[in-house]
Amino acid sequence: MRILGIDPGSHVTGYGVIDKSGNYLRHVTHGEIKARRNSLLSEVLMDIFRELGAVIAENNPQTVSLENIFYGKNVRSLIRQAQVRGVVIYACAARGLPVFEYSPLEVKKAVVGYGRAEKRQVQIMVKAILKLDGLPPADAADALAAAICQANFMKEQPI
Amino acid sequence: MRILGIDPGSHVTGYGVIDKSGNYLRHVTHGEIKARRNSLLSEVLMDIFRELGAVIAENNPQTVSLENIFYGKNVRSLIRQAQVRGVVIYACAARGLPVFEYSPLEVKKAVVGYGRAEKRQVQIMVKAILKLDGLPPADAADALAAAICQANFMKEQPI
Repeated sequence: MRILGIDPGSHVTGYGVIDKSGNYLRHVTHGEIKARRNSLLSEVLMDIFRELGAVIAENNPQTVSLENIFYGKNVRSLIRQAQVRGVVIYACAARGLPVFEYSPLEVKKAVVGYGRAEKRQVQIMVKAILKLDGLPPADAADALAAAICQANFMKEQPI
Repeated sequence: MRILGIDPGSHVTGYGVIDKSGNYLRHVTHGEIKARRNSLLSEVLMDIFRELGAVIAENNPQTVSLENIFYGKNVRSLIRQAQVRGVVIYACAARGLPVFEYSPLEVKKAVVGYGRAEKRQVQIMVKAILKLDGLPPADAADALAAAICQANFMKEQPI
């Protein structure tokens, strides 16, 4: 089972791909899609659709895992992030991939063991779980964490 | 100049197309894209992309006008609406259409003359301005109002 985790953000969208076979998890790839400076929202959305499409075509995942949007931020950035997230969900659904959603609490619990973990702890635990050589960048680490969460919990109802 | 106005919503996405030549506005078409009952978010997003694509292919607009998201609603429906909106912007941008954005105040002012107008007043004024036979449904009326707003104000900076 190959899982694509995605962390959609208004400036950086992280992604990470893992394989699950039995209880064993294997790292496949990870990276970040960054908005170019001063680009329009419409350009950002087109870039994300295209680059995510390339990641999917290259890695051929069977399922996608996303973290819920965190409600604590200001409304303007919440709206921007949700707009990106809509295109991310569409990009996966348009390629026939089921998308599953986990709360930040579920994702953090899956990798760190408790829900209040900080970004750096997530990076450290993702590195340990997937036996990476170095710390993955923060948004890619969050995406890998979402993938690990799906590998552990395997929700049945896609969004 | 042919303008497509869109009112993206979590349940209903209204659209309306008008022609502007000089100061004269002509109604072309309008309608609503409704989410099927119990459909998944990913299905809703795919339906909107596909149906909006058909509207664009059929009517061949040169520019798109959207109303800003209204901040007053609850966060859950705000996020859902913004996710739809992201796909709407992407669907237009992917077809090479520039997307312009107006505040609810600007849109209401463009059709009713003041910013606190109610839904029904917008429907009545849109009907009058475009010489329609009947009241358009509320979400299509909002979309036509956004198109009328773009016809009047013609912002220069797309989103």
